[in-house]
Amino acid sequence: MSLEEKIIIKAAQAKQAAFALAVLSTEAKNQALHAMAAALEARSSLILLENAKDIDVARKMGMSRSMLDRLMLNEERILQMAEGLRQTAMLPDPIGQGIGSTLRPNGLEIRKVRVPLGVIGIIYEARPNVTADAAGLCLKSGNAVILRGGSEAIYSNQVIASVITKAAYEAGVPEGSIQFIETTDRQAVRILLNLNQYLDVIIPRGGAGLIKAVVTNSTVPVIETGTGVCHTFVDASANLEMAKNISINAKVSRPSVCNSMETLLVHEAIAGDFLPLVIDAMKEKGVEVRGCEKTRSYYGGLVPATEEDWQTEYGDLILSVKVVADLDEAIAHIAKYNTKHSETIVTQDYTNARKFQQYVDAAAVYVNASTRFTDGFEFGFGAEIGISTQKLHARGPMGLTELTSAKYLISGEGQVR
Amino acid sequence: MSLEEKIIIKAAQAKQAAFALAVLSTEAKNQALHAMAAALEARSSLILLENAKDIDVARKMGMSRSMLDRLMLNEERILQMAEGLRQTAMLPDPIGQGIGSTLRPNGLEIRKVRVPLGVIGIIYEARPNVTADAAGLCLKSGNAVILRGGSEAIYSNQVIASVITKAAYEAGVPEGSIQFIETTDRQAVRILLNLNQYLDVIIPRGGAGLIKAVVTNSTVPVIETGTGVCHTFVDASANLEMAKNISINAKVSRPSVCNSMETLLVHEAIAGDFLPLVIDAMKEKGVEVRGCEKTRSYYGGLVPATEEDWQTEYGDLILSVKVVADLDEAIAHIAKYNTKHSETIVTQDYTNARKFQQYVDAAAVYVNASTRFTDGFEFGFGAEIGISTQKLHARGPMGLTELTSAKYLISGEGQVR
Repeated sequence: MSLEEKIIIKAAQAKQAAFALAVLSTEAKNQALHAMAAALEARSSLILLENAKDIDVARKMGMSRSMLDRLMLNEERILQMAEGLRQTAMLPDPIGQGIGSTLRPNGLEIRKVRVPLGVIGIIYEARPNVTADAAGLCLKSGNAVILRGGSEAIYSNQVIASVITKAAYEAGVPEGSIQFIETTDRQAVRILLNLNQYLDVIIPRGGAGLIKAVVTNSTVPVIETGTGVCHTFVDASANLEMAKNISINAKVSRPSVCNSMETLLVHEAIAGDFLPLVIDAMKEKGVEVRGCEKTRSYYGGLVPATEEDWQTEYGDLILSVKVVADLDEAIAHIAKYNTKHSETIVTQDYTNARKFQQYVDAAAVYVNASTRFTDGFEFGFGAEIGISTQKLHARGPMGLTELTSAKYLISGEGQVR
Repeated sequence: MSLEEKIIIKAAQAKQAAFALAVLSTEAKNQALHAMAAALEARSSLILLENAKDIDVARKMGMSRSMLDRLMLNEERILQMAEGLRQTAMLPDPIGQGIGSTLRPNGLEIRKVRVPLGVIGIIYEARPNVTADAAGLCLKSGNAVILRGGSEAIYSNQVIASVITKAAYEAGVPEGSIQFIETTDRQAVRILLNLNQYLDVIIPRGGAGLIKAVVTNSTVPVIETGTGVCHTFVDASANLEMAKNISINAKVSRPSVCNSMETLLVHEAIAGDFLPLVIDAMKEKGVEVRGCEKTRSYYGGLVPATEEDWQTEYGDLILSVKVVADLDEAIAHIAKYNTKHSETIVTQDYTNARKFQQYVDAAAVYVNASTRFTDGFEFGFGAEIGISTQKLHARGPMGLTELTSAKYLISGEGQVR
């Protein structure tokens, strides 16, 4: 059997399962999530054994320490995965929720209700916990899922998928609801991206390269996630202590994630006071600061920032800094370079705060808060499958609701047109 | 300048205009819509002159009468176009509408508001009124639009686009908000489909061939519209007179549109009574009826229906009929062959009505009403840009709301994470 035939069989099974999953009761889905959690805990030594194989290969290939850290599992991380599934069980079931209804003049009653998307493909890298998280969120929202993890985590993903799939099936979830692509052959991704007959949507989770490859090659609808060139703009009227704290938090608290800051924009009027304050603090935290010409005139010894810097998601302890003449220049810089993820202004000026939120085009636009809050849990969704940076279907953090579609139910008594 | 360069210039202008359009006041947009309507009326003789050129070419190429009818404009149709723009002006502006807000435990206030999608590409065929309709709906929803009509209507589309673009600009709409691709070179579509840097979404409107080509070749997100293999299932408990009326309406009232019926499914228990009733009535209306083997055992002289019939959107006065053993067989047939558009059951059985609406996967699932009601105006949206048959972003008739995205506005007082 060719690779394509094998994948089509899995996709067809998922599609078949999706019909039954769409009408599975909330109670049955929650029981399965608890069973999956318990199975992960019960098989933790097996999971750690398989994870050790991935770590071993990765070490031999010279993987960086931060990548190794993402890949590595331990008892605590397995408990967290299990806990995540239990939390998903506790969230309200979006399926069947009414989104509105009308009674038309001709007597037709029209209701709009949430239904699953159908079959969701998740293509992801590195962190093996995505296998359990994504499977749990898709199950709760009544969707079948096809998981395709990165080759670096193949042993870990495989054993996690196997454990949760078995537990879900035994708890009454339709067979085929959770599919895992076991090959590391890159061709498998290409095949998935064109299975329009079986897949309703593909969500890539990973680096910019993965996401671009999926967007470019997929004929199945894609929800683009995650790249973030996020800015903090410190306005002339900003409380400088607040601006420093927000900047440090946005850059330093977790530089590898998409909602962290890459570029700091500073109003010229306070540049002389603020730049020394913030750059000293950044350096203390080990941040490499690159500055525009003006920035360097206020603070000596910085690496010059180039055109490339404004476009770069460092994902690391590096920061580019630019001095701007006013709010309009800040907005224009953001419009040119941002990835429509998260942007913040620090200001005490009411009009500027309002204008920034209205004019900046991004999923999340902040006033006086760190961009690091763009996250499904921080937004109160109780879960997150990724952060959409596109405008279609979902924007910003995606919870269970974003994994649903809708249908209209129309009830009449013989109406014709 | 190459074709690609020309189109990129238009797309870049549209993207630039979209920033200003996103914050244009409702009042300014409405004034522009009224000005566009007045301009269409004032230039109606010029529009008819240009339309006559299209009709002339089409006649020489032997275009069918029904296609010619779609292409043809007259004074009344121009007045309708203008009236459509005025109606769009009267609809509520979706931009800025709040979709919910929360106050988080840490004091962050999170609001979700509607914003435009940005730049919308519309690729359409035949009817020149789409040029005005689509431009009006995109303008009202704060989106820039790139219009690409079919070559058969090039003269008509060009003059309509020119008249409304000029009127909109003079009324204060940002320059570049309405773009029209003037070439009939098919390469232009290919170029548009890959301008991810400029376009946020592409909506194809036309036949199955056009839609498939767009879905297959576009890297820009697409909203699939319009193909409809719709079914009517007449259950054992149906009121047969109601079932006949609904079937006739669904097939005959406008066979060329996507919400009309292609296949009639009849419960075996009432096939003997119902088939003669409905087939006689269909024949009286000039419908060619093709039947499965069982259907033909109840009603002699019908053309046999083949596997291909169940898959076909006739768009014409042709109907395929299948006798099924029960509700489950009807649901299974629909799951196998429908295009997820509109489906209806005629029944007096409460449990079957409920099961049909729950189990059938389609944008609109009816009980005791004609599928012909799947339409933005009939649903009370006041407008329609097309009918989505995909599950992502929009499903069923798309009004102004479906032409929007959202953003989160988060206000704090120095919160960090």
